[in-house]
Amino acid sequence: MTLAEELAQRIVATRHADLTPQAVDYAKIGLLDTLGVALAGSREDASRIGETICASEPGPSTMFGRDRRVNPLAAAFVNGIAANVLDFDDCTDHLGGHPSAPVLPALIALGEKMNASGRDLLLAYVVGFEVETQIAKGVNFHHYEKGWHATATLGIFGAAAGCAKLLNLDARQTAIALSLGASFSCGLKSNLGSMAKPLHVGHAARNGLLAALLAQEGYTANADALEHEQGFLNVYNSECNYSIARILEKWGTPFDIVLPGISIKQYPCCVSVQSAIDALLTLVRNHDIKPEQVTRVDTLTYARRLAHTDRPQPRSSLDAKLSLQYCLARALVSRKVVLAHFVGDAYRDAEVQRVMTLVHAAAFAHNAPGDNDDYGAEIRISTIDGHAYVVSINRPVGHDPGVPVPAALLKEKFTRCAREVLNTDQAARVYAMTQDFEQLRNINELTAQLAVLPSHR
Amino acid sequence: MTLAEELAQRIVATRHADLTPQAVDYAKIGLLDTLGVALAGSREDASRIGETICASEPGPSTMFGRDRRVNPLAAAFVNGIAANVLDFDDCTDHLGGHPSAPVLPALIALGEKMNASGRDLLLAYVVGFEVETQIAKGVNFHHYEKGWHATATLGIFGAAAGCAKLLNLDARQTAIALSLGASFSCGLKSNLGSMAKPLHVGHAARNGLLAALLAQEGYTANADALEHEQGFLNVYNSECNYSIARILEKWGTPFDIVLPGISIKQYPCCVSVQSAIDALLTLVRNHDIKPEQVTRVDTLTYARRLAHTDRPQPRSSLDAKLSLQYCLARALVSRKVVLAHFVGDAYRDAEVQRVMTLVHAAAFAHNAPGDNDDYGAEIRISTIDGHAYVVSINRPVGHDPGVPVPAALLKEKFTRCAREVLNTDQAARVYAMTQDFEQLRNINELTAQLAVLPSHR
Repeated sequence: MTLAEELAQRIVATRHADLTPQAVDYAKIGLLDTLGVALAGSREDASRIGETICASEPGPSTMFGRDRRVNPLAAAFVNGIAANVLDFDDCTDHLGGHPSAPVLPALIALGEKMNASGRDLLLAYVVGFEVETQIAKGVNFHHYEKGWHATATLGIFGAAAGCAKLLNLDARQTAIALSLGASFSCGLKSNLGSMAKPLHVGHAARNGLLAALLAQEGYTANADALEHEQGFLNVYNSECNYSIARILEKWGTPFDIVLPGISIKQYPCCVSVQSAIDALLTLVRNHDIKPEQVTRVDTLTYARRLAHTDRPQPRSSLDAKLSLQYCLARALVSRKVVLAHFVGDAYRDAEVQRVMTLVHAAAFAHNAPGDNDDYGAEIRISTIDGHAYVVSINRPVGHDPGVPVPAALLKEKFTRCAREVLNTDQAARVYAMTQDFEQLRNINELTAQLAVLPSHR
Repeated sequence: MTLAEELAQRIVATRHADLTPQAVDYAKIGLLDTLGVALAGSREDASRIGETICASEPGPSTMFGRDRRVNPLAAAFVNGIAANVLDFDDCTDHLGGHPSAPVLPALIALGEKMNASGRDLLLAYVVGFEVETQIAKGVNFHHYEKGWHATATLGIFGAAAGCAKLLNLDARQTAIALSLGASFSCGLKSNLGSMAKPLHVGHAARNGLLAALLAQEGYTANADALEHEQGFLNVYNSECNYSIARILEKWGTPFDIVLPGISIKQYPCCVSVQSAIDALLTLVRNHDIKPEQVTRVDTLTYARRLAHTDRPQPRSSLDAKLSLQYCLARALVSRKVVLAHFVGDAYRDAEVQRVMTLVHAAAFAHNAPGDNDDYGAEIRISTIDGHAYVVSINRPVGHDPGVPVPAALLKEKFTRCAREVLNTDQAARVYAMTQDFEQLRNINELTAQLAVLPSHR
C-alpha cells in the first residue's frame, strides 16, 4: 500500500467508539476557541476582501459574523481566513502551526450542507487533526524551517482527510483526496506578516474540502503522490529530510488532539512570542516595574522561533503580531496584550515605540532539549536603579502537553472574542452549544447563532 | 527594488506599441490553439466534474463548450482544466510546460466581466507569457526536474501578471499579485497521468486571477516573497538552483512569445514524445512498414524527457498520453495519433498492446547540446527480414524556435478540435474572429460563439 492508502485505511476505520472522553473534551476546546477567534477575525480586512471576491454565490454555509450563506467552498475560504487572521488560534506541538483553522472551517461549511451532527463533526475533526500531525511528524521541523507555512502546507491534509471522513468516502476515494491535497499544498513563510498569512489558511481549508469533493465525484489522482520521487515528501522536504515510518508509527491511543493536545493562546499574536510575554508580565507584575524605570530588556528564545519573530520595526499591525520587540514593549507598557493592540496604528504608539528600542532579542546559545521543547524564554529587565530582574519559563500558559487550558481562561477568551461581533446572549448560546456539541443533532442549529444581521454588528 | 517590484514595473510599463506584428501573430496562434483544445477538452470527465463542483454560480464568464455563464474564477478553473486535459495544448521552450492554458482561460474569464477588447487581451497575454517564461529561465530546468509541474507552479505567475495587466493595476498592486502568486504556486509531477494534471492548470488559472483580484481590492503581501530566504526561489528550488539575474536579464525585444515562440502540438499527448512519433511515422510512411513486420522498436530520447514518459504499461487514457511506449505503438499500428486514441479503453487495443512489448525505450548516452535542444529523438525499427530503419530528428513539426507552425496545420488542428463540440459554422466563425482578434471590440462577441446549447452537443 502507498502512504496515502495506509492513511486512508486508518481514516476509514476510525469510529466514534475510538474517541475517548479526553478526545471529545479537547475537540470541544478546539471548536470553541476556533469559533471565538474566527468571529473576532471576521471583521478584519483580510476576511472582508476574501468575502467580496469569493463569496457571491448563495448557498447553505454560514460565514461567521456575517448575514449571508454561501457555497461551502467559499464559506471554508472566508472562515478559514477569519480563524487565522488574528494569529490568536490554537496550536499543537508537532505541526509547527495551527491545527484547527484549516480544518474546522472546511468541516463546518461542509457539515451545514450535509446537516451533519455534532458527533460526526467531532469524529471528522479528530481524524483530520491526526492526519495533519502525523504527516507533520514525518517532515518537521525541517519542513517548517525550510520556509513552508505549515499551517497551510500540512493543514491541507487535515482538511482533506476530515472532509473525506465527514463525506464518508471509502478508502480509495480518501486516498485520492489526500493525493489531491498534496498537489494543492502551498503557502510561503516569506509572506508572513501580511494578509497573505491568513489567506494561506483559508485557501488550505477551501482546497482541502475541494480535494474531498473532487474525490467523491470520481476525480483521479495517483495513490503514490506523497512518496513518489517527484511527490510531496521529496519535493517539499528533499531527500533524507522526512520519514514515512514516523508518519505511520502511530494512529490514536491517544490521538494527537489529546497528547500533546491543543494549546490555547492567551495573547493575540504569534505562538513563538507567548512565553516571552508570559515571562515579562510575571516580572512586571511581581515587581511592579514601570516602563520609565526600564533601561533595557533582554530576551532569549530558541533560534527556530526567533528566526521569524525578530522584527524590531514591524511594518503593519499584522507584522506586529510576529514582532517579539513590539509584543514585549507593548506588554511592558500596557501590562497586557489584547486584540486592540493590533488594530490600525496601535503598533505605532509613541511610548511603545520608545520602549521597543530598549528590547534586545537573541537566541539561546544552546539548542532546545527536544524538538517540542523550544517554547522556552528568558527575560531580563534592567532598571535605572541598577537592578536586573530575571525569569525563565518553559511553556506559556495553556500550552502544557496533555493539560487542557483552564476552562475559565478558555471561556473568558471566547467571550471576549465573540463579543466583538455577537451580543451577550448570542455568545452565551454558542458557548452552551459547544459544551454539549456531541449531542447536537444538526450543525445548522449552532451556525444559525453565528450568522449576524448587519444591524447586530 | 525587490524581484516582484522589478517585474511589476516592466508589466506596467509595457504598452500596445511594444507589441511587434510577430508578437501579435504568435499571440493569435496561441489563442486559436488554446480555444480549440479547450473546446475538445470540455467534454472530458476532468472538466465536467470541475464544473459540477465549482461552477454553480451565475456570472458573466463562459465555460467553453457549455451553455452556462459563471463567475470569472469558476470559468478560469473549468476552462483551464479543459485547455490542458487532452495534453494537446501549446508549449514553449523555457517553461518546461504549457504557457497558455494557465493564462488565457483566466484572461478571457476576466475579460468577459470587463468587456475587454481583443487588443487589451493580447497585450495582457503577451505580458503574462513573458513573466512566466522569464521566471522559468531563472529556475529551470532544475525546477522542472525536481518534480514541480511547471505549467502550474510557474504558470500561476503568468496568470497573475496577465490579469494584473488586464485590470490595469499599478506597480505596487501588481507586485502584490506576483507575491500572492508565489504563495499559491503548487502542482506535483507525482500526480501526472491522472486527472490531477489538468486540475493543477485550472487551479493555477483560477488562483492567478484570484491573486490579481485580491491585489486590486487592497490585499497585502510581502514584496520580497520571491527572493526572501523563505520565499519562492529558495524554498521551491533550493539555494544555488536559481538566478535572479537570469530572470531579469531580458524583457521583450523580442518577447518570448516570438522567440523561442509558441510550439504547436500535432499529436494529443505529452510534448516529450512528439519527436519520437514524428520520427517513427516518417519511417513507417517512407518504407511502408506494417506492424506485423516489426520485431523491435528502439527509441532514444533525452533523459529529462524519458523520466516521465517511460511508461510501458499505462494505467488510464490520461496515463497513455505520457506513455512513450503507447504513443509509438499506436503510431505504428494506426499511422497517426489522434484524440480518439486516448478515449476510454482505446489504449487497451490488443494489437497496440502487443506492439508495445516490442518498444524499447532508452536515454541518449550524451546530454542535450543545450537546455532547449533536448527535443531530439532517434527511432530504429527492426523488421523480420533483418532490416533496420533508423532516423533521427531534432524537433517535432511546429516546434522550431521563432518559426510559427504552418497556418494550414494550425487551422486543420483547430477545426478538428472545435468540431468535437461546435458545428461547422460556429467553428468557422471562431476561427475568423481569432484571425482579426486585435480588431475585436469586446471579447464577449467571441465567447458568445463558444457557449454551446445542450442541443448542439
